[in-house]
Amino acid sequence: MSGQQDYPKISVNTIKRLGNRGAYDYATIHTILNTCPVLHVSFTDPAHPFPVVLPMLGCTADFSNTTADPSSSPQDIYLHGYVSGRIFNQSKDSGTEPGLPMTVAATHMDGLVLSLAPFHNSCNYRSAVAYGYATLVTDEDERLFAMHRITDNMLPGRWAASRNPPTKAEMQSTSILRVRVESASAKVRVGGPSEDRADLKDGELVGRVWTGVVPVWAQWGEPMPGEQNGCDEVEEYIEKWRNGENQRGRVEAYEAVGKGK
Amino acid sequence: MSGQQDYPKISVNTIKRLGNRGAYDYATIHTILNTCPVLHVSFTDPAHPFPVVLPMLGCTADFSNTTADPSSSPQDIYLHGYVSGRIFNQSKDSGTEPGLPMTVAATHMDGLVLSLAPFHNSCNYRSAVAYGYATLVTDEDERLFAMHRITDNMLPGRWAASRNPPTKAEMQSTSILRVRVESASAKVRVGGPSEDRADLKDGELVGRVWTGVVPVWAQWGEPMPGEQNGCDEVEEYIEKWRNGENQRGRVEAYEAVGKGK
Repeated sequence: MSGQQDYPKISVNTIKRLGNRGAYDYATIHTILNTCPVLHVSFTDPAHPFPVVLPMLGCTADFSNTTADPSSSPQDIYLHGYVSGRIFNQSKDSGTEPGLPMTVAATHMDGLVLSLAPFHNSCNYRSAVAYGYATLVTDEDERLFAMHRITDNMLPGRWAASRNPPTKAEMQSTSILRVRVESASAKVRVGGPSEDRADLKDGELVGRVWTGVVPVWAQWGEPMPGEQNGCDEVEEYIEKWRNGENQRGRVEAYEAVGKGK
Repeated sequence: MSGQQDYPKISVNTIKRLGNRGAYDYATIHTILNTCPVLHVSFTDPAHPFPVVLPMLGCTADFSNTTADPSSSPQDIYLHGYVSGRIFNQSKDSGTEPGLPMTVAATHMDGLVLSLAPFHNSCNYRSAVAYGYATLVTDEDERLFAMHRITDNMLPGRWAASRNPPTKAEMQSTSILRVRVESASAKVRVGGPSEDRADLKDGELVGRVWTGVVPVWAQWGEPMPGEQNGCDEVEEYIEKWRNGENQRGRVEAYEAVGKGK
């Protein structure tokens, strides 16, 4: 991990606890954000003490350099979904801030790690958290770019294979947020269980309690046609994506068990 | 949904956008929280403008009434994991608040909904968000209760089947948070795609673009024994749980497609 490829380590993103699980490189962070089907977005609402948390769809991209490789360059995060204008306005009123401070989190669970004692149970996981300033995207070209990216990040090729461009009414009623990422970090746990020494000396316990990892991944099932579907077969790019994702998820979950040795 | 079984609708939790997807009943909210393998926990850190978001393990429970049915009574949320004492202290210093204001979010993705145009694409999902005040649990009995519940919420029966109780050192180095839930809400999207009328009249488009739902669920794979495992076979309760979860996940993802008609 070269320093050129990392988000800066500043106070907000530095992993203090179990620091050996921390990562700051673009590739790790952007991959987690872009492969997680749901992002959890959090920001402060001055109306009450609890942060708002919304599940949203989104992905990383760079409108100023659309061919940039996300594994070697910083990215913005584009989010599709509605956030009350009131909150953006309050942020604007508050002074010089370049947008609404926002935290974007993505977590993959890769396995349940079972030890001889519950205290040592754990999970294999990959999580990324990005901190930045969100603004509503108003430029039409950038909004179109973001919709295209978010659609194809979920299902590659869907944008071109379905009806585009959006109508004017569709463009107007789609809210796109851009988060300029200030800093970010990832945390990754891999490997098998760790045990207490005393437990390992207890032959009865060791012989009785199964220990290891139950891998887990997102499984995409057989597509179910909608009531108004008029296309006889599921298109090939959809099946290719689905089978590829299932394969990738399974392989990553099993590979995580063998890593960290 | 009787009013007796619901969290109160107050400003912080009332679903304003797509309100027909909102739910406030204990059963829906607690089921989502307790079946989601990871909870996203958010709170404010006075040191910077970005909310902290941490992936944590946890479940609902009621230590004052341990046999209470979570589908018909309010619950606390117990979380396993470390949150800097500094943040709790700051919350305490700030005056009369009964703990650290915290938001706990859980989201299940049930399917990708594909329409003729990207604008109408959607997802089937179930998300729950709970708002409450978190404190560190100091009472030994309550900590033990919470560890037991969190372990068995992940894998029923694991607590009794593995080495317990925890040692004194284990008890001391486990942090348990209790969130007293002030309000909560859920949002659920089911069904197939919706379409633009004009698109449906376009025979070429309808014949060319497959529309429907690709269901998705968490798939638990074949358990991988750890290097120090000494138990010849995966215990029956583990396989029963694993197969049951896979079955439940698949059924729920497919059933979601047929609902909402």
